[in-house]
Amino acid sequence: MAQYSPYTSLLKPDLQQMLQEGDSAGLSEFCNALYAGVVAEVLEELDAESAWRVLSECSPQRQAEILPFFSLPYQIQLVDHVDRKALSRIIEEMSPDDRVDLLERLDPDHVESLLPLIAQAERSDIRKLLSYPDDSAGAIMTTEYASLPVNITAEEALRRLRIQAPSRETIYYIYITDEGRHLIGFLSLRKLIQASPRTELSDLVERDVISVRVDDDQEFVANEIARFDFIAIPVVDNQNRLVGIVTHDDAADVLLEEAAEDAQLAAAVAPLEDAYLETSLFTLTWKRGVWLVILLAAASLTAFVLSIFEDQEAGNWMVLFIPLVLASGGNAGSQSATLVIRALALNETEGKVGLIARRDFQVGMILGSVLGAISLAVALWLVEPQQAAVVASTVFLVVTMGTVSGALLPIGLAKLGMDPALMSGPLIAALSDVVGVVIYYNIARLALT
Amino acid sequence: MAQYSPYTSLLKPDLQQMLQEGDSAGLSEFCNALYAGVVAEVLEELDAESAWRVLSECSPQRQAEILPFFSLPYQIQLVDHVDRKALSRIIEEMSPDDRVDLLERLDPDHVESLLPLIAQAERSDIRKLLSYPDDSAGAIMTTEYASLPVNITAEEALRRLRIQAPSRETIYYIYITDEGRHLIGFLSLRKLIQASPRTELSDLVERDVISVRVDDDQEFVANEIARFDFIAIPVVDNQNRLVGIVTHDDAADVLLEEAAEDAQLAAAVAPLEDAYLETSLFTLTWKRGVWLVILLAAASLTAFVLSIFEDQEAGNWMVLFIPLVLASGGNAGSQSATLVIRALALNETEGKVGLIARRDFQVGMILGSVLGAISLAVALWLVEPQQAAVVASTVFLVVTMGTVSGALLPIGLAKLGMDPALMSGPLIAALSDVVGVVIYYNIARLALT
Repeated sequence: MAQYSPYTSLLKPDLQQMLQEGDSAGLSEFCNALYAGVVAEVLEELDAESAWRVLSECSPQRQAEILPFFSLPYQIQLVDHVDRKALSRIIEEMSPDDRVDLLERLDPDHVESLLPLIAQAERSDIRKLLSYPDDSAGAIMTTEYASLPVNITAEEALRRLRIQAPSRETIYYIYITDEGRHLIGFLSLRKLIQASPRTELSDLVERDVISVRVDDDQEFVANEIARFDFIAIPVVDNQNRLVGIVTHDDAADVLLEEAAEDAQLAAAVAPLEDAYLETSLFTLTWKRGVWLVILLAAASLTAFVLSIFEDQEAGNWMVLFIPLVLASGGNAGSQSATLVIRALALNETEGKVGLIARRDFQVGMILGSVLGAISLAVALWLVEPQQAAVVASTVFLVVTMGTVSGALLPIGLAKLGMDPALMSGPLIAALSDVVGVVIYYNIARLALT
Repeated sequence: MAQYSPYTSLLKPDLQQMLQEGDSAGLSEFCNALYAGVVAEVLEELDAESAWRVLSECSPQRQAEILPFFSLPYQIQLVDHVDRKALSRIIEEMSPDDRVDLLERLDPDHVESLLPLIAQAERSDIRKLLSYPDDSAGAIMTTEYASLPVNITAEEALRRLRIQAPSRETIYYIYITDEGRHLIGFLSLRKLIQASPRTELSDLVERDVISVRVDDDQEFVANEIARFDFIAIPVVDNQNRLVGIVTHDDAADVLLEEAAEDAQLAAAVAPLEDAYLETSLFTLTWKRGVWLVILLAAASLTAFVLSIFEDQEAGNWMVLFIPLVLASGGNAGSQSATLVIRALALNETEGKVGLIARRDFQVGMILGSVLGAISLAVALWLVEPQQAAVVASTVFLVVTMGTVSGALLPIGLAKLGMDPALMSGPLIAALSDVVGVVIYYNIARLALT
């Protein structure tokens, strides 16, 4: 379980008093003395207008440091209270990736009215970053990386790095490029400060550099950073020219975002862009409703299939176990789907479809036997032994089939180039319901006539 | 979708040939020239015995660098092929957090036989780290942090840091402590190299340092690192003495691990410790079976409830819509549960239970109306209008109730101090099945008699 940070409750009352008394000096100290993330956490408890009154007591540089720590919906509320001139200054000072996150969410007319107030160099950088597709490396990278030529000494490198430092997102990884900006290697600051001053960078540089392409998917990029424990990864274009870096903190955000997206898809919710309580009721209803309607359509199919069989059979006792039989198959299937979707995301399934099918068949047979035996015991309380045997055999079959199909359907979707997480637990349950009814009534017919 | 790394397919054939020819020089170059994470990726494609034959061509330092990049189950297979003396050397060279991860998984007798071969200082460090509870900050931290006293100059600090550098996990954050090891602040290497050589550290140090306690939960620690974009966070004991740091890469692993755990719980699977394909069939069956049996017990309840109502009612037509009615309620409930469990994990619900209940009631009413209307249309194909109205009203009620209870049950679990993720989609569906049957038959009785 997560824990609650102590800052907010401690600092909020002081802050409200300073606001009431118009204590500029106090507000300015509050903005400047604490860690930017803590300032944002406390301010987000206030309404956006009051938060801006506090922030307007500090410099645009400091405002630009604090702003990215607010949630995006709150950032958007906040900038509504800032006049265009002040806002353009903050945007100039923000790091390229953070400002593009914000600008992408603002009304396009608003963005167009802001851009002319922003310095030329920043403006063209913004336009370029805005042009990369959502969820690509280009969309999450920053262009403020540290880079050096290969033919200088360690001493000279440190001197140049001190000049670059204030405007770079990180200086702990330094990228080595040629005159054409082609990436030829990298160097950690740790290695640089340990080297003797006269060493040439060409003797220090690590040439086996792992990079990603600007159009690579953000989840792939985040996984590469996590896999190799990098602080940052370089992003190159098709000509291997360095165009940016993605840093570890942005990768962590992507991992969290993708995990939330997968969890929502698994429960048949179209992924939310914002936090749960910040999503409007309309959006929330829409993103849930779309899937519920699809699932209802699948469930209707079960009603039609049942209507065919019901006519042929007298067995009223069968009704009692319809929910039990169908739920068992659906639950087994959504378990398999969840495990395989995760394995697909981590690239563990490559070339192992046969193995997965075999394993899930074995697991399904065991689970089916256990659940079948328990169902038999339960059913004997309510119906005749022969009828109970029908229930048990059906549970055995639907659990085995649910387990195997729950594992194979996501792999099938992935092979078709679709997101395997679309094969959610509820969808697998709905499909297995239809098959379950057919199995149930056919076993009954065979056994009891 | 994730993408497949090109290294493995390119390098594996070369490697196999070198192994066949016993080409020591080639194998040693392979081990040393590439990035450690890449070496591990390629080697993991071989069986553990061959992988160790390759690794034995390089130094213990290098082996210790490469080992943590293997998955833990593979590490355990691998060390089976290493004699105790060589293994104790590797363990000495590994970073404290990585070696504790490995040792925790090894047979305790094996660990006890290794420890006497390990140097005294390392040994007591290992015993201490092994003593922290699983999933705590203490269990994932490393004791190899960079620290300096406050009363030296920037120049002297850099000199001392160069000496510390080779044995520290990161030197990019430097922790400032007093003689009693109490944490009094921190300093980034970026700030240090920008400072003029004569500046005293006391003028550079950031005293508003955010730290965690050694017994804090690992998920809390990982969220703090992600929230504040840190490279590392200091870990202190009850007397505010610095005992270790948790670095961003370990935090990312925790985030991934917790996300996988939540996804598995949401689909009613007891969390797996290893990757899907590395989990034994027995474990897999057990971790799924436990939950399936619990769910089957809940579904049996539905059979008993149905048996009470079936006696009283003649309505055979009602059977057709049992799966549809029950699935609608269950799906709506598991959607709510997923969204609220996520919001709980991110601390978004604090003091907002009333708001959540109200929002989910509204969303439930809208979704219930839409699904009720569609069910009416579907049912009119199969049954009489009055009967179709019974189906539609039931769908409306079960969806509304499922939505609200799916949101509130996880919050209730959390208030009881339990993991809200235990209130999985399938469990909510099973509970809502029982209530659904009662609602369905009662509405039919009221409407049709």
